[in-house]
Amino acid sequence: MTSLTETGCRTRRERLWKTVPADVEWVLIADPRHVQYLANFWVQPLSFSGGERGLLLLERAGRASLMADNFTVRSAVHDPFVDREIVTPWYDHRHAVRNRDHALFDAVKQVAPELAGRKGLVEAEWLPLAAAQLLPNATTDDMETSSLDLGTILRNLRRQKEPDEIELLKVCMRAGDAGQARLREILRPGLSELEIYLEVQKAALEAAGRPGLVYGDFRGTNGQNIKAGGLPTDYVLREGDLFILDYSVVLDGYRSDFTNTMAVGPPSAAVQELFGYCQAGMAAAEKRLKAGAACRDVHAAAAGAYPENGKSVGFTHHAGHGIGLAHPEAPLFVPESDETLLAGDVVTLEPGAYVKDVGGMRIEHNYLITDDGYERLSHHVISLT
Amino acid sequence: MTSLTETGCRTRRERLWKTVPADVEWVLIADPRHVQYLANFWVQPLSFSGGERGLLLLERAGRASLMADNFTVRSAVHDPFVDREIVTPWYDHRHAVRNRDHALFDAVKQVAPELAGRKGLVEAEWLPLAAAQLLPNATTDDMETSSLDLGTILRNLRRQKEPDEIELLKVCMRAGDAGQARLREILRPGLSELEIYLEVQKAALEAAGRPGLVYGDFRGTNGQNIKAGGLPTDYVLREGDLFILDYSVVLDGYRSDFTNTMAVGPPSAAVQELFGYCQAGMAAAEKRLKAGAACRDVHAAAAGAYPENGKSVGFTHHAGHGIGLAHPEAPLFVPESDETLLAGDVVTLEPGAYVKDVGGMRIEHNYLITDDGYERLSHHVISLT
Repeated sequence: MTSLTETGCRTRRERLWKTVPADVEWVLIADPRHVQYLANFWVQPLSFSGGERGLLLLERAGRASLMADNFTVRSAVHDPFVDREIVTPWYDHRHAVRNRDHALFDAVKQVAPELAGRKGLVEAEWLPLAAAQLLPNATTDDMETSSLDLGTILRNLRRQKEPDEIELLKVCMRAGDAGQARLREILRPGLSELEIYLEVQKAALEAAGRPGLVYGDFRGTNGQNIKAGGLPTDYVLREGDLFILDYSVVLDGYRSDFTNTMAVGPPSAAVQELFGYCQAGMAAAEKRLKAGAACRDVHAAAAGAYPENGKSVGFTHHAGHGIGLAHPEAPLFVPESDETLLAGDVVTLEPGAYVKDVGGMRIEHNYLITDDGYERLSHHVISLT
Repeated sequence: MTSLTETGCRTRRERLWKTVPADVEWVLIADPRHVQYLANFWVQPLSFSGGERGLLLLERAGRASLMADNFTVRSAVHDPFVDREIVTPWYDHRHAVRNRDHALFDAVKQVAPELAGRKGLVEAEWLPLAAAQLLPNATTDDMETSSLDLGTILRNLRRQKEPDEIELLKVCMRAGDAGQARLREILRPGLSELEIYLEVQKAALEAAGRPGLVYGDFRGTNGQNIKAGGLPTDYVLREGDLFILDYSVVLDGYRSDFTNTMAVGPPSAAVQELFGYCQAGMAAAEKRLKAGAACRDVHAAAAGAYPENGKSVGFTHHAGHGIGLAHPEAPLFVPESDETLLAGDVVTLEPGAYVKDVGGMRIEHNYLITDDGYERLSHHVISLT
């Protein structure tokens, strides 16, 4: 089963240490996405431990330690790449359970004496207060002003994906492709949005070869309802509707995110015209995708392919965004972006059009940014019919 | 769509205030499960905001305030029952996104001046350190020793379900029933565990009428592999195997959790004998289900229906447990339990048997505990064939 690798985790930890002042000897990470990024520890959301947490202690000397209760640690999707697991008892099938979080904090108590007298830094956005109170001498990061804001540092590091992350994203992409292909097979008047969701989810997870999360926009639009978004409802598609399938497949926290819009029955000339603008927007933006490009220029290229820069046809949202362990994440293709594309960014382009009395539509591909341009990661068919 | 109700949320908040010392004027809650319990705010895990958080401020005078960023608040499954939403900007489709957690903490900054000089209490197990540092005069709870341990208080309150919670659980149960019925239709040699998962998931969510999480044990067992558990693999079922379907359907954080084991092909006499023990264990334990019963006695009743109290046939795990917003949660049917059943507890009974050269099996129903006994909430067929 494809997963993050030990080499990848070690590389990411080395990149982190380069950003941390030399006198800091340890860091404590709590955001589950950062913990996954650095140690391949992801509590299976499809398990009775969904929502439970592990804490990751990294030491400059190289050691990585994971803290978790005895059931959370065995509900991880993969074995984590750490040097030490500090696992504390929560449940033993003989005694009543106690507060599960207290078991986690017992692990922090075990580690705390090792940290006394050594300067450390905690990721304060997710570290629970109760865990922080058990630590000696911990410097908390100054969220707004300091370069020691560990959470922001990690979010920035996460932009430039390592090879193992890209391989995992490709598994998500292939699953996403399969769901898009399934829509093409089944779409017809009389299907409900929910029925389509269930078919797409099944096809995507079949292709993934394992359970995972499937979310996004699974919605019909038409001239009277041009802006539908979100999870499917019981709405039943009718001839003349459009169906927007803008969805993600999430495995180990990483996700695809791409879109096609299909016509239910033959598309009108007006619909085809709008679709043509979306395709032109995508083609124009693709030409700008390259490390070093200004993200506002990518947006401008997409918008510039539309009449009136997209305003008259409702293309007023972003032209795309970064994806990975969150969605959307940096960089953003927006008019006032101050960001620049980096090699290793994984991004979407998603031009759309939403016109009263015609309908709403959007198309989207996913790309890995390289020094020379990009590698397209999604391979679904983008077409109305 | 069935959800928690305003009446239910207000009743639960009143129950909470009765446990908090009279001089405490406000409490701040961060655990997403407690926030859902008290305010019907549940970030849709099947959305791009999955894993993001809202914070809930409750004041003794009655006001409830929700803090969240502008995208998280609109990714909630339902409108929350609060008097005030403090929503701070994270993303506007024009500028690059900043650290999303900082948007959440901006909401805390807005509220902090209101709390100055008033005694308050924070739920320290989930409140992030960075949020706590923005608060004036906050008393943190003393996790291990004090009656002011808000997290433990809330976990205890959550045992006794209100009517709205029971209605929502019943929707989960009906979905669970539908998945069990689907297994009965499709089970045959040659199906993989993953294929069964995808069919069961689809049937359960069709019955739920909306997307949700489906997790549990979807595993084949046989005489050589008696203890399989967890999500499905690519294992292909063979004549003579048993299939354990022990699974949950999660809607708005609440979940069902029940089980049947089916034989792939005609079950052997040895398998039927073991299954009879499981049924006898369930029947014996059901007779003990009633508010006021000692949980260890429920376990003893289940075990007592087996030869050698279950030890010779591998029934060494719990006989059942509480469910709700977590799994397992109190009360636990275990030999050394010190818990007593309460009216409003929702529990499972799950006797099993695991014998080398025969196979592994488990059956399970869900029950609402009442003063007079119980109401069974799951209605699936429990039988090997």
